[in-house]
Amino acid sequence: MRNIKLTIEYDGSRFNGWQKQSDQRTVEGELEKAIKRTTGEEVKLIASGRTDTGVHAYGQVANFLTGCTIPGEKFLYAVNDRLPDDVSVKASEEVARSFHSRFSAHRKTYRYVFLNEDVRSPIYRNYAYQVKHELDFKSMKKAIKHFVGRQDYSSFVANRSNKQKNIRTVYSTRIRKDGNFIEFEIEGNGFLHNMVRIIAGTLVEVGHGKRSPDSIPGLIECKDRHLSGHTAPAEGLYLLKVFY
Amino acid sequence: MRNIKLTIEYDGSRFNGWQKQSDQRTVEGELEKAIKRTTGEEVKLIASGRTDTGVHAYGQVANFLTGCTIPGEKFLYAVNDRLPDDVSVKASEEVARSFHSRFSAHRKTYRYVFLNEDVRSPIYRNYAYQVKHELDFKSMKKAIKHFVGRQDYSSFVANRSNKQKNIRTVYSTRIRKDGNFIEFEIEGNGFLHNMVRIIAGTLVEVGHGKRSPDSIPGLIECKDRHLSGHTAPAEGLYLLKVFY
Repeated sequence: MRNIKLTIEYDGSRFNGWQKQSDQRTVEGELEKAIKRTTGEEVKLIASGRTDTGVHAYGQVANFLTGCTIPGEKFLYAVNDRLPDDVSVKASEEVARSFHSRFSAHRKTYRYVFLNEDVRSPIYRNYAYQVKHELDFKSMKKAIKHFVGRQDYSSFVANRSNKQKNIRTVYSTRIRKDGNFIEFEIEGNGFLHNMVRIIAGTLVEVGHGKRSPDSIPGLIECKDRHLSGHTAPAEGLYLLKVFY
Repeated sequence: MRNIKLTIEYDGSRFNGWQKQSDQRTVEGELEKAIKRTTGEEVKLIASGRTDTGVHAYGQVANFLTGCTIPGEKFLYAVNDRLPDDVSVKASEEVARSFHSRFSAHRKTYRYVFLNEDVRSPIYRNYAYQVKHELDFKSMKKAIKHFVGRQDYSSFVANRSNKQKNIRTVYSTRIRKDGNFIEFEIEGNGFLHNMVRIIAGTLVEVGHGKRSPDSIPGLIECKDRHLSGHTAPAEGLYLLKVFY
């Protein structure tokens, strides 16, 4: 058996997230169908992690074992012909048997996009979190720096998550403004469920002057989800890259 | 009767263009329905111009006469509540009775977006013209300058167009590269049918080295559509702004 690694882009708008579900249209489900049509095999994809409904990806990674002899770097062409137009394999390669998309990953980068405009935007309705009232970019820029470091992110995890293992390392953050758009990128060794979206929601509250940038360290210290901001919507979130 | 001017954004992906057709979903049709639900009146919208199927707009302009007493600048809120999510009125105001969205317009700006990437992009499938093989940005930049001026654009008009009145003035062009994206903007006193898309298709051929930037003046001089480039697809085109 050979181990094939895929790098996948998708527009999350019409998917019920990554994970296969019998009665829903999911990215994993569509990929497994396309691979079956290509190789004749029922494969089980291993992804770097799930993404929720509406979340997009430029560089999701998944691998699978196959007996098929198509060269690794040709796989993408065969599979893409059998995929719907809102998902595509951007790169494929054969990797060592020991490679595991989830366990071998040591860094990930997410991007979150805000559109700061009062009247709703049809063009970006599925691709950005549209925020009314002016956001103070300088405050957001000050606030986001506090998320760098090895910290317990219990204030930034969906409630239903296990409270035991919430320590993660964020290596870097970047934020930029381009016209009415503000977008940030965050790179870390792993992210808790909804972590980036709760950070995004909290940053909006900073941008609106409801929180000060200097309140972030205390908020992290509290380890209490109830004290942090709202969960920003899925449509602004993009899984950019997974590092191995 | 009052004359109301609307500035309209739409995602052209799911519309059969601007112009109302009895059996098709169009931007004009959806707007007239929403206005009827707002004012109770059957209005006739006058647009700055039509856009084809798949073309997007950030700043289409249309006006209509109404007996309704909603203040001009409040119209957008009432109408937006009755519009589908892929079209929205970004601004509204009452204007003089003499204002006519088409005849009063004296300048327009269009943007065209290329994505230069080999493997198809799901996220941009409806929002850019994806071009494989590397585009030479410097050549495209040289070429686009030749489109500025008062010229006969018969080489850049859809065949079915009337060949009599093809002189237009292009005031300026801008082109920029941002990662894998190349986008240009073109501002003029008016544009022929498919003019921006044929310019875009011709620029791609320059970018691929099939034409030299210096061939453009001769191409314009020829006034022959058969000698210019292909018509680039609608999904890369955005009507940015109409000036009055």
